[in-house]
Amino acid sequence: MKHAVTYELIKKDTKTRARRGRLHTPHGTIETPVFMPVGTAGTVKAMKPESLKEMGAQIILSNTYHLYLRPGHELVREAGGLHKFMNWDRAILTDSGGFQVFSLGDLRKITEEGVKFRSHIDGSSHMLTPEKSMEIQNALGSDIMMAFDECAPYPADRDYVKHSLERTTRWLKRCKDYHQNMENQSLFGIMQGGMYRDLREESAKAIVDLDLPGYAIGGLSVGEPKDLMLEVLDYSADFLPADKARYLMGVGTPDYLFEGVERGVDMFDCVLPTRIARNGTAMTSRGKVVIKNAKYQKDFSPLDPNCDCYTCRNYSRAYLRHLFKANEILSSMLLSEHNLYFLVKMMENIRKAIEEDRFTEYKNEFYEAYGPF
Amino acid sequence: MKHAVTYELIKKDTKTRARRGRLHTPHGTIETPVFMPVGTAGTVKAMKPESLKEMGAQIILSNTYHLYLRPGHELVREAGGLHKFMNWDRAILTDSGGFQVFSLGDLRKITEEGVKFRSHIDGSSHMLTPEKSMEIQNALGSDIMMAFDECAPYPADRDYVKHSLERTTRWLKRCKDYHQNMENQSLFGIMQGGMYRDLREESAKAIVDLDLPGYAIGGLSVGEPKDLMLEVLDYSADFLPADKARYLMGVGTPDYLFEGVERGVDMFDCVLPTRIARNGTAMTSRGKVVIKNAKYQKDFSPLDPNCDCYTCRNYSRAYLRHLFKANEILSSMLLSEHNLYFLVKMMENIRKAIEEDRFTEYKNEFYEAYGPF
Repeated sequence: MKHAVTYELIKKDTKTRARRGRLHTPHGTIETPVFMPVGTAGTVKAMKPESLKEMGAQIILSNTYHLYLRPGHELVREAGGLHKFMNWDRAILTDSGGFQVFSLGDLRKITEEGVKFRSHIDGSSHMLTPEKSMEIQNALGSDIMMAFDECAPYPADRDYVKHSLERTTRWLKRCKDYHQNMENQSLFGIMQGGMYRDLREESAKAIVDLDLPGYAIGGLSVGEPKDLMLEVLDYSADFLPADKARYLMGVGTPDYLFEGVERGVDMFDCVLPTRIARNGTAMTSRGKVVIKNAKYQKDFSPLDPNCDCYTCRNYSRAYLRHLFKANEILSSMLLSEHNLYFLVKMMENIRKAIEEDRFTEYKNEFYEAYGPF
Repeated sequence: MKHAVTYELIKKDTKTRARRGRLHTPHGTIETPVFMPVGTAGTVKAMKPESLKEMGAQIILSNTYHLYLRPGHELVREAGGLHKFMNWDRAILTDSGGFQVFSLGDLRKITEEGVKFRSHIDGSSHMLTPEKSMEIQNALGSDIMMAFDECAPYPADRDYVKHSLERTTRWLKRCKDYHQNMENQSLFGIMQGGMYRDLREESAKAIVDLDLPGYAIGGLSVGEPKDLMLEVLDYSADFLPADKARYLMGVGTPDYLFEGVERGVDMFDCVLPTRIARNGTAMTSRGKVVIKNAKYQKDFSPLDPNCDCYTCRNYSRAYLRHLFKANEILSSMLLSEHNLYFLVKMMENIRKAIEEDRFTEYKNEFYEAYGPF
């Protein structure tokens, strides 16, 4: 079967497992490794799509759970799909809604059929199943749809994780069977298995058997220590086939992106850059800047002296601090633009470094300048 | 004395007092009549300066009271002035702070010296005088500085208004005497006189004697009925000299702009377009659109079918409604951009209509399409 989305491996780093590739999608070719800005409710918060394109964002992530509840996937379908609805003509990846409904805690109940939950908006009752998640994602028309899975919590005992990953595999088959639009949308599977090596291997084998165009490593960055996360990531990435895209979900701090790339991951997403921006924090080449701090009051230099983004070209820290203290919308706009630019350019530099076989050197330089994460 | 800002009359309408002119300032020439978007705290809320320039905004207004309290005028001076601080290289007009401190009610006390008040931010005590207002506006570096005046409330008895306007005249002289930067900044006087014809005339004579490059009509749109406002505006405009710019303060609904232009006013400002935008209301060629209304849920047409703004070119009412309901920042960004574009283009059309001697025809067409204001 021909997939709508395909991965092309271009070059491998000789010293690490880092790899330079391309993801071909119905909405353009994506150079990997790539960071995907998150547009939860059909908008990357405080950003015009044109600004995202200008900075070189290639693909964004949007959330099935949020769009299902508001404005509703049938409305988005009537609007001509999510690309048209939100004025974004590059690629879109949608998650399955699984992670959000599992996060609802007491408001949800899991069965073999799916997850029953109450809306965080109005308390209304809903049921999300593998079929329903596919129906919603088909209506949204994303280029990459994620399988409906259970992300086991941390810590979780072996029995729970094994049981959960087996159900996740059964749910993946139901997703694949129900998927209505193979020509234009591709389904990615999600590996689970918690912090257990053999379960990660078992999960990987089961999902790889289904011959999907890409696979995510799920269930990481859920509260476990960084060492453990890197240990699991280390072997998990190797369980996945080299000719398919690999996606590490929900990861967006610079160090995790480097560590992921080093282990052969191609795709990342996280709300972090835009969320901390709205809280007044910027990522810069010399580490984090908390803009409300008094020391920036009369600092007329740019946020990051090494940055060419719109914000750094035109505004001072003193002005950004003023906007933040005055609760001005422009504060969120300018800091979001800077933080996204920072990660997008960092990934561009990573790709270039891999091409030139100096990924480790670039990583070391970056870490040295950035300081503690 | 050569003024930094000068008014040039280009053409008069033959059927009304509407006039087409130019305001020459150190930051460019402004075609009049003109609407000035308001950037209270050194930012036109939810707008990048580039978007304002793209739509044709020629001059913005910023508030002395707000910038004095936060971030402080000395900080803005150190930053190189307000133009540089906020990344706006076109003209800026600053108000005097008078209107804001008078609006503080119990928090302020008026004497001949000036106004003692408490900050709305932290309750700290301050004194604003004609000299202090000039000092602040000199530090901000605006092209046009407004005189420190008292805007009498409505209703107010004749004695109060007379006493107040005479003090306003004395304050204006103090402003002129204290003004430190005549070569680069021009001081505009403000006419007061409440709803009393003879007091308006008295005020006008006194301020015109000072030979300033422009005059504002103050003390209107403060709660009086529309009929009365138009009656006072009618004779007030005529008391001002034809070779100087005329500015009607705080007015921004389409009908008041038309009525003002018809009576020979050149400049207008108001927070209305951006404020109602943040509350989800758009001004369109067919009247107001309250975007949260259920009838727009599946309305995939643009906000205004006759508008070429960024928002109308790229987004549907259904999407804008979704953003507003989801409390997304992009909602304020897109509606603010539309509303400002709407007024800026309306003023462009008014200028063209005056040039072609069909102002009244354009006004009638506009009113017919817009419906009730």
